[in-house]
Amino acid sequence: MADKLRMTMLYDFYGDLLTEKQREYYDLYHNEDLSLSEIAENVGITRQGVYDIITRAENTLVETEQKTGLIKRFVEIQAEIGKAIHLADELMKRSETPETADIIAQLTNILTALKG
Amino acid sequence: MADKLRMTMLYDFYGDLLTEKQREYYDLYHNEDLSLSEIAENVGITRQGVYDIITRAENTLVETEQKTGLIKRFVEIQAEIGKAIHLADELMKRSETPETADIIAQLTNILTALKG
Repeated sequence: MADKLRMTMLYDFYGDLLTEKQREYYDLYHNEDLSLSEIAENVGITRQGVYDIITRAENTLVETEQKTGLIKRFVEIQAEIGKAIHLADELMKRSETPETADIIAQLTNILTALKG
Repeated sequence: MADKLRMTMLYDFYGDLLTEKQREYYDLYHNEDLSLSEIAENVGITRQGVYDIITRAENTLVETEQKTGLIKRFVEIQAEIGKAIHLADELMKRSETPETADIIAQLTNILTALKG
């Protein structure tokens, strides 16, 4: 997984396990794309202080995933849902009545919402 | 959710965040159905000691879910997959060719595997 997407998913899944300060700096750095120096200037601590807090936050997120594997599980579910959507598309091409087309459309809606 | 199922899901999702000792006692108590006294006797510490370790483990699991909501998210996905399986069943009843029946069967297999 690309590092950027990985960091965003880690934050999405486990961000609420961080302290408020870790969450704030992590968000500014990884999601808002501020540099360490910019964050340091904004919040009034040293660049090294910001670096330490963000590194500790990253370690917590990475270790939580290493232990629980929940993102891996979720990504696998998403891949299977992708296959199911493809099969629903194939069914739609072969649908011969408005009734089955309607059921397939409902099915596709559910799966697409899950795919996010 | 029933307390028993809830405790099992909490352990399944977040058990690896516990210490080895917490995991061992929690498993004996909630999954193997040993009493606090039985665990205390087996491992050679006081009943109160076992109680404290299991309570701390439970708090960690419950707080992790309160913060992340990942079990809630997963249960919601499961419910939607249940609806999708129902719709696939409806399609199968209306299938008029072996080809569509085969596609629906593939779709149902994927969804059923996800439902676990």
